[in-house]
Amino acid sequence: MDSSRNTYIWPGSFEMHRGGVLESPSVVYETWGRLSPEADNAVMIFTGLSPSAHATSSPADPAPGWWEEMVGPSRPIDTRRYFVVCMNSLGSCFGSTGPASISPATGEPYRLGFPVLSLEDIASMGRAVLEELGITRLAGLVGPSMGGMTAQAFAAMFPGTYERLLLISTGPRAEPFSIALRSMQRELIRRDPEWRDGYYPPGAGPIQGMRMARKLGMMTYRSAAEWQQRFGRERIPEERKSGDGFAMDFEVESYLEAHANKFIGQFDANCYLYLSRASDLFDIAEHGGSVEAGLARIDAARVLVIGVPTDLLFPVHQQRQLAEALRKAGREVEYAELDSIHGHDSFLVDMDKFRPPVKAFFDS
Amino acid sequence: MDSSRNTYIWPGSFEMHRGGVLESPSVVYETWGRLSPEADNAVMIFTGLSPSAHATSSPADPAPGWWEEMVGPSRPIDTRRYFVVCMNSLGSCFGSTGPASISPATGEPYRLGFPVLSLEDIASMGRAVLEELGITRLAGLVGPSMGGMTAQAFAAMFPGTYERLLLISTGPRAEPFSIALRSMQRELIRRDPEWRDGYYPPGAGPIQGMRMARKLGMMTYRSAAEWQQRFGRERIPEERKSGDGFAMDFEVESYLEAHANKFIGQFDANCYLYLSRASDLFDIAEHGGSVEAGLARIDAARVLVIGVPTDLLFPVHQQRQLAEALRKAGREVEYAELDSIHGHDSFLVDMDKFRPPVKAFFDS
Repeated sequence: MDSSRNTYIWPGSFEMHRGGVLESPSVVYETWGRLSPEADNAVMIFTGLSPSAHATSSPADPAPGWWEEMVGPSRPIDTRRYFVVCMNSLGSCFGSTGPASISPATGEPYRLGFPVLSLEDIASMGRAVLEELGITRLAGLVGPSMGGMTAQAFAAMFPGTYERLLLISTGPRAEPFSIALRSMQRELIRRDPEWRDGYYPPGAGPIQGMRMARKLGMMTYRSAAEWQQRFGRERIPEERKSGDGFAMDFEVESYLEAHANKFIGQFDANCYLYLSRASDLFDIAEHGGSVEAGLARIDAARVLVIGVPTDLLFPVHQQRQLAEALRKAGREVEYAELDSIHGHDSFLVDMDKFRPPVKAFFDS
Repeated sequence: MDSSRNTYIWPGSFEMHRGGVLESPSVVYETWGRLSPEADNAVMIFTGLSPSAHATSSPADPAPGWWEEMVGPSRPIDTRRYFVVCMNSLGSCFGSTGPASISPATGEPYRLGFPVLSLEDIASMGRAVLEELGITRLAGLVGPSMGGMTAQAFAAMFPGTYERLLLISTGPRAEPFSIALRSMQRELIRRDPEWRDGYYPPGAGPIQGMRMARKLGMMTYRSAAEWQQRFGRERIPEERKSGDGFAMDFEVESYLEAHANKFIGQFDANCYLYLSRASDLFDIAEHGGSVEAGLARIDAARVLVIGVPTDLLFPVHQQRQLAEALRKAGREVEYAELDSIHGHDSFLVDMDKFRPPVKAFFDS
């Protein structure tokens, strides 16, 4: 059962949270470890906007996963003890049904014909995957970043189906600064003439728009403090310069350029638009009338919330808000504020700081 | 002498700080108040990247200035007592010589033939304007934002020529986060096909690129806290929506759109590129070998540094750095950290907080 890459197909019509229907949509998921005979040792991980289901390596797929140091044998989410499931989000482009997939009705990619995507839809598909695996109650529900909002949606929609809840660098809903940022990323993609209103040929698309969206993303995934430490005002050597005088002077510009170029071709532009907007639209308050009431539906026996003060995308007051509201609702909540300079991406980068609290939470 | 709009023309060749020459460049400046017979009551204001010389209204030009509430009779920089000078930066497009001006050598706009612009060039032109006015020593030297870096350049280049120094929301040099931001703004402009490598027709140009650069600017001129308070998750009413589903959902998106559209046609794209890069290139360390040594050249009798903790563009640790280094160099320094939620733009917006310390500084 180790690291099988599986596909779950929803039988028949899947009604989307904000209207519209998908016919027999599928999601790809990977698993690690063994499900106990009592099926009581499962951990479900919902991902951020861009990762695939490949959270960690395994004999079947030895490529390093996006959370390699966090998940695995003798790692904080220990696959000798836990049966870990990670799903590629509905709407994404790493095997799951999304705007880049072929619509059975037309034989063409959905493109903008894909219905409005909500994180609740991703949560519902996750629930179906778990049912197929024979899991009625999770030992752990985990979500960093956008995945943390998906985990909240899951938790509010399916109370009584999880024991522990781990929320990392996330919030109960997007605040206007993050909305503005993502809106601008979407506009950069949509204004690229190669986007062609979503009708770019498969494999091609708005490369410049995606590059610029990625650069803008990097500015909020990392932190000013980290860049000051790494780059300061270091210049690009003359021999590496090109173009007019405005091209590039500083190493930080070269770093952003390299990251933007690495992203090219990795992610389908329409999928990015749908997932980005789903992040803006999510609001736990829709699950109870207010943020507090929505969070009060979450009945985990134990909660761990982790935040990082240098995070610009999900600022740390949002993690404090989650912890406080869940505590007020009577949950047993631990809150860890980690002193990392890596901003929003700290949970992917600063593993020495993140491993201990996650390990303690899952060991107990 | 009240609010005359004047033009100063440099006689002959002006050698640029980083190489290149301009023939008889000119700058526009405005003045308010009366110069005392001893010429000892002058205050010079260097502007941020985008303002004109019109800092405040006057009988001759009653349009409100960009710092209307700060400068004028009985205002903090009191024109009944002080003779105030504000200059449109060299390289800008509000009357001063810049990339949009006609080159006497070619009869065509300079465009990218304009030499590399440095804030030191702006400071030198400012010094020449003061000499023409018969001012050898300023009662006050003032600079917010980019103007604060120009003021530092002036102060380091011309010691002994100023009494008070007021630095607002500025730093001794750009840090990599701000460089990355401005680099991305420049790339947005340069990648707009209508930029045409700088050869757009006068009055036309990269409108979309300028719009997107402005939106990105707004994200760092203001603050997440302010937007949370103003907009929260307020939606745009259905009747005001247009375009595909990705166009706009939230009021914060509409606000950014309105600001971006207001900026169209106000500022020449090439001038923006030059001034933006000049901000990145400035480093007070070039005036002494280190930041500390550069700042130690500044011999104001009294210094006031004002910072705002919500500023993303010139973070408050930079204002603390300025104050500490100047104090270490033996200057009498006051430091005011104002609790404003308006981010970098606070000095233009949150006048109730800014007026008192500026008034106290200039009254004494």
